[in-house]
Amino acid sequence: PKTAVILAAGLGTRMGERPKGLLKVARREILYRTLTLLGQNGVERFVIVTNERYAPFYREFLKQSSFNAELVINPEPEKGNGHSLHLVKNHVSGRFVLVMGDHVYGEEFIREALRGSGLIADRKPRWTDVGEATKLKVEDGRVTEIGKKLEGWDAVDTGFFVFDDTIFEITDALERERGGDYPLSEIVKRAELPVTFLDGLPWIDVDTPSDLRMAKRMLVKTAVKGTGDGFISRHLNRKVSTEISCLLAEKVTPNQMTVITFVLGMVSAFLTLVSLPLAGILYQISSILDGVDGELARAQLRESRFGGYIDSILDRYVDGTFLALLAYSALREPLWYLIALFALLGSVMVSYSTERFKAAYGEDTYGSIPALRKLPGKRDERIFTTMLFLLHPVGASVKALFLLLAVLTNLRVGLTTYFVHKKVSYPKTI
Amino acid sequence: PKTAVILAAGLGTRMGERPKGLLKVARREILYRTLTLLGQNGVERFVIVTNERYAPFYREFLKQSSFNAELVINPEPEKGNGHSLHLVKNHVSGRFVLVMGDHVYGEEFIREALRGSGLIADRKPRWTDVGEATKLKVEDGRVTEIGKKLEGWDAVDTGFFVFDDTIFEITDALERERGGDYPLSEIVKRAELPVTFLDGLPWIDVDTPSDLRMAKRMLVKTAVKGTGDGFISRHLNRKVSTEISCLLAEKVTPNQMTVITFVLGMVSAFLTLVSLPLAGILYQISSILDGVDGELARAQLRESRFGGYIDSILDRYVDGTFLALLAYSALREPLWYLIALFALLGSVMVSYSTERFKAAYGEDTYGSIPALRKLPGKRDERIFTTMLFLLHPVGASVKALFLLLAVLTNLRVGLTTYFVHKKVSYPKTI
Ligand SMILES: [Mg+2]
Ligand SMILES: [Mg+2]
Repeated sequence: PKTAVILAAGLGTRMGERPKGLLKVARREILYRTLTLLGQNGVERFVIVTNERYAPFYREFLKQSSFNAELVINPEPEKGNGHSLHLVKNHVSGRFVLVMGDHVYGEEFIREALRGSGLIADRKPRWTDVGEATKLKVEDGRVTEIGKKLEGWDAVDTGFFVFDDTIFEITDALERERGGDYPLSEIVKRAELPVTFLDGLPWIDVDTPSDLRMAKRMLVKTAVKGTGDGFISRHLNRKVSTEISCLLAEKVTPNQMTVITFVLGMVSAFLTLVSLPLAGILYQISSILDGVDGELARAQLRESRFGGYIDSILDRYVDGTFLALLAYSALREPLWYLIALFALLGSVMVSYSTERFKAAYGEDTYGSIPALRKLPGKRDERIFTTMLFLLHPVGASVKALFLLLAVLTNLRVGLTTYFVHKKVSYPKTI
Repeated sequence: PKTAVILAAGLGTRMGERPKGLLKVARREILYRTLTLLGQNGVERFVIVTNERYAPFYREFLKQSSFNAELVINPEPEKGNGHSLHLVKNHVSGRFVLVMGDHVYGEEFIREALRGSGLIADRKPRWTDVGEATKLKVEDGRVTEIGKKLEGWDAVDTGFFVFDDTIFEITDALERERGGDYPLSEIVKRAELPVTFLDGLPWIDVDTPSDLRMAKRMLVKTAVKGTGDGFISRHLNRKVSTEISCLLAEKVTPNQMTVITFVLGMVSAFLTLVSLPLAGILYQISSILDGVDGELARAQLRESRFGGYIDSILDRYVDGTFLALLAYSALREPLWYLIALFALLGSVMVSYSTERFKAAYGEDTYGSIPALRKLPGKRDERIFTTMLFLLHPVGASVKALFLLLAVLTNLRVGLTTYFVHKKVSYPKTI
């Protein structure tokens, strides 16, 4: 569908003066999120139905943005919201999407929902408050019953519909019978709408301030990309970093977070001159924080290639500086410096061999070569190991650490080139 | 043009039994080169005109390859070669290309020539023997005279034509008048063919063994890509490496050369334990040889992304190992090891920051950010500097070298991120 209709005519009462669609979650208006994600997935034109009271707010919002959108006013918002849909009859044709203006949807939900048809329903809603939700009974892939108080329901209405303009035959009939006062659910029931199930994907109906907090949490928790995450990242770092991202999502930008993480990492490196255990612990903390900038960027719809670029350069410098100063602080013999030099070389080469593949082949390395995901030696694992070796450093701890890193990282680089060669010589796809 | 006609019916006499089009230059048959380059530039179908004696050779060649090609036999090859063109009348339609089967063309020539029309002519032929060439006089963009012995000529015939099928009106007439015996030049003159000038690009007419050697030289000399070449590479390394590539073009594959260069580089690294001047000199030699694998790959039409990938990984290991062993052999104090660690970090990061840009943006870094080409600190410059410092090493030479490298490389990385940021924030193209 190239057109989307946003229903934003309802007079919200529990959330203050501003229309709910213009409340911000993770620094972006709900409407901005919906339009942006729909736009990224091919929708080119938006029709927003609102009421007279909210129209100035939406007009102001659209003036500040560059969406290709028009406003349609529903002069009788107190009547059922089915009438709001009827009002766009002359504004759309063919297939179009209908979305609730007060629902927050995640990227994955929008991408998948646009491929469905009829009512998009969720059999395992994960984020929304089911008590308040509209439930459905479904038979043979079609809605048979719909309502808030349904018992023994099959799925929950996500507020996302893929229609075509034949739906207006139903609204025409309902307009005549009900004098314009009928809810959307009446249209759904009358049309015996087909159902597309999308289970457990991120979406939430925002009715209360607590829903808004849950929406933020949903956006952060589903913002983890994580194809390059190692064992420690999956089982420890991400669990902590997403909680931190929840705390910071409204206050801090990704760029600010990149700088904070870099500074903390550099401080940890210089701490090796003072206290190895403290240095190790702060290094691990900076490794946890390293996930936050990316999570904030995705949750705030603020991802940028330059952000990723500078972040990865700074990470290499934190690692390099940490190893260099650790060697300087703890080693004396040239032989051990030699090993430290190879540990530093291997540490950067792990990233180099991964990014160089992407540069040459234009494909995400971990996506193309899944074997690399399980291979140990990723940054999160190296840093955690470093911290462990530095917690109670005895005479040979640092030497053992450098030897381990030198072997592990350079072995990983060797295996990376082996896997790249295998992938290139025997490609799965033709 | 989607179709190309190759004229290979002439009975060559100076070059042995095999047809000239199947002679190899830089390990590839002339015909293989022409068909491959035309194919890479959009030509989908080939018609090869040959004679009865050569047909079995060409049939065998086509059986071994996967070109979409058919053979047309000229039973009277001793007559003028205009008749060979006439014979393909029912095999082509619309626009098509006519190419001499015994000419070797470089990549750039083919790419540009396909955009031309009529006779592709060269006003400044660089590689071919002008004495033997067919000359042209051109007026108002059309051929007025053509011949081997023309005086005061304007350009030389490259043997590459872009025709459309109206040319057969001329051959029809000539067939009637001359009983099938007329040269291509007669067609050119009669048609008053339009001329497209392509000056100085790589092409050569192969008549003698010495032409064949010149063809090889042409392919190697024009195989230099060099967007990432530094000052030393442009003014020294490439001059030597292309001569070496000329010597090796028939004998060595790019992969073999990559291995040889890597081994030599590693030997130079270990030589730091024995003699610093020798190590420096061998390191610089390996830096010169580092260009050869790429040159051979392009000259032999054997470029591969994996070749480039593995080459760049091995280069990093040669550099890392050289710096690590140089430090081990010459340094004693921890402070100087610290500086060596940063020199090694910076050395790898110069490449990392370049490749990471390509991975993120999918564009060639030096193509997108020309400012980086002039920035000092590239590999060829670092290695040459290293050799200079090691030629007569006094007490502080190695320390000075490491300090210089540590500052130069990390400064370059900083400037690289700055240029990337500038490019991304104020892109030239919209
Ligand atoms: Mg980071
Ligand atoms: Mg190399």
